[in-house]
Amino acid sequence: MRVALLAHEQFPDRAKTAVGILRYADHDVVAVVDRATAGDYVREHIADVQDAPIVDSMAAVPDCDALVIGIAPIGGGFEDSWRPDVRRALARGCDIVAGLHYFLSDDEEFARLADEHGCELRDLRRPPADLSVAEGTASEVDATVVCTVGTDCSTGKMTASFELRNAARERGLDAAVVPTGQTGIAIADWGIVIDRVVADFAAGAVERLVHEAGDHDILFVEGQGALTHPAYSGVTLSILHGAQPDSLVLCHDAGRDAVHGYEDYPLLPVEQYADLYERIASPVHEASVDAGMLNTQDMAGDQARDAVDAYADALGVPATDPVRFDADEVIESVL
Amino acid sequence: MRVALLAHEQFPDRAKTAVGILRYADHDVVAVVDRATAGDYVREHIADVQDAPIVDSMAAVPDCDALVIGIAPIGGGFEDSWRPDVRRALARGCDIVAGLHYFLSDDEEFARLADEHGCELRDLRRPPADLSVAEGTASEVDATVVCTVGTDCSTGKMTASFELRNAARERGLDAAVVPTGQTGIAIADWGIVIDRVVADFAAGAVERLVHEAGDHDILFVEGQGALTHPAYSGVTLSILHGAQPDSLVLCHDAGRDAVHGYEDYPLLPVEQYADLYERIASPVHEASVDAGMLNTQDMAGDQARDAVDAYADALGVPATDPVRFDADEVIESVL
Repeated sequence: MRVALLAHEQFPDRAKTAVGILRYADHDVVAVVDRATAGDYVREHIADVQDAPIVDSMAAVPDCDALVIGIAPIGGGFEDSWRPDVRRALARGCDIVAGLHYFLSDDEEFARLADEHGCELRDLRRPPADLSVAEGTASEVDATVVCTVGTDCSTGKMTASFELRNAARERGLDAAVVPTGQTGIAIADWGIVIDRVVADFAAGAVERLVHEAGDHDILFVEGQGALTHPAYSGVTLSILHGAQPDSLVLCHDAGRDAVHGYEDYPLLPVEQYADLYERIASPVHEASVDAGMLNTQDMAGDQARDAVDAYADALGVPATDPVRFDADEVIESVL
Repeated sequence: MRVALLAHEQFPDRAKTAVGILRYADHDVVAVVDRATAGDYVREHIADVQDAPIVDSMAAVPDCDALVIGIAPIGGGFEDSWRPDVRRALARGCDIVAGLHYFLSDDEEFARLADEHGCELRDLRRPPADLSVAEGTASEVDATVVCTVGTDCSTGKMTASFELRNAARERGLDAAVVPTGQTGIAIADWGIVIDRVVADFAAGAVERLVHEAGDHDILFVEGQGALTHPAYSGVTLSILHGAQPDSLVLCHDAGRDAVHGYEDYPLLPVEQYADLYERIASPVHEASVDAGMLNTQDMAGDQARDAVDAYADALGVPATDPVRFDADEVIESVL
């Protein structure tokens, strides 16, 4: 699929979806649409991803199949300054892919244009209408199932899932990510945003994804939140019990000592998370924390290596920072 | 509030909501509407609840403020044979209260009649539209917060909550139940069906209920599901972390040895549930299992006492069957 990525005034640092697609998706990115950096190339801003020209509007984008909204403003609204680009993309017959809280398919103008030009408006945050409760059957799939879990939100679970997938593929395995959040879904072009699902069906939605993933050697289920998060722990546990993983990879943000946005809630020592995840998983399906992932982006290089080593020691399993170092260092222990 | 309870052909054994209201609600029940037992009195079918005449249709019901749908068929649909009673109730100016999956307020005829006669259609399963994520503040309320938790679904958490409330009231305390399921909500005339809430907002919805409950000495938060349930554990944990209880009461169905409807999943020894609930609660708010509730309805009397004693021994805290014996036996340990 050839895509353009809309990222006006946010590329690359606040364009998580756009950067994720450039880094991990199988899509061919024909252009990034950003009026602030137009004229540059992607490679001038981020290393180790596919390159593409940056253009100022959809008018300058080469032929493509879809325009992906590659940014998510706080609140998840649609900014009206993007409307001309979306309008033009639809007029050219492109599908629109968006992970906003505002559903493009509920927008009267876009719905009409999509209809006229035979395009699809794909709102990634809209859950399927036919979900149901889990039946407790995810472990019946042939694949090894690995779930990334965390000590908090935003600890790198999505990144870890794709890095582990790539490391498994380098070993010649047929590996896939089971995405449970909007960025992962935009990258893999498939998945369900679990936190938008009615609570009763959350585990069932994950179970369905694991079954739909089908015939692979190994699946990396993207976890969400944390088991001890004051607001999101229910989503975390629904994914853990719905996916019935064999193996867990614990993701932590180096130096973080309280729940992000809930500073009255200190984080526990990391080994206590490993213990809790294993204890709560086992009555449904036995799983062990077999690797650790540490996000060291705010550290200097030698500090980062020490922090990763200390993290591995605390957990008693191999650990890495998959972005700074390599997920290949830990892939053996989850296979 | 004077209410009539619709329970056609299901009273009393399959009319959980009707029986719950007769037993625990502050409502004045003016009649039960059941064409199968019409002519009888409630006292001829169930002991220790308020009495009322049973009549065959709404036409025979004395003056009242609301008609409550007191039964929930599998699937939660509305049966068309109830339509004449609902129609007549609306024509008389009564509100309709329903915990069905089918929303009466989406029914064209009922919506029109309610509008004409100035009545309210109250669909208890419809969550409020303005929910948000938890802020981690439930423990700021002045009340002692007790949460009923379970080894499985249908272990008596709702019943335990109301029995504990009554026992606390007998001690002269100002006690209230925080209902999280449709029957509890119909009884207390207040609450949110947490399993219908979008997963991200489930803990936030419980937190809001705890704050709304307001100024009481003690709150009994009705738990749902179980922490180890293959399908519903996310709802359970959202309630536990959203409510931030000080004390837990573990509810178990005597003799049950596998998850109901998921027979491949054996239940753990009861003391392991107590340990798990305490471990997973504590990073958000410290709580201890201070009492046990055992549902012994399928046992003979002497067997039941032995089973309750064994349950108390296993948990190391006082236990009772609140229906067969008395919740008063354990109320001290949660105050």
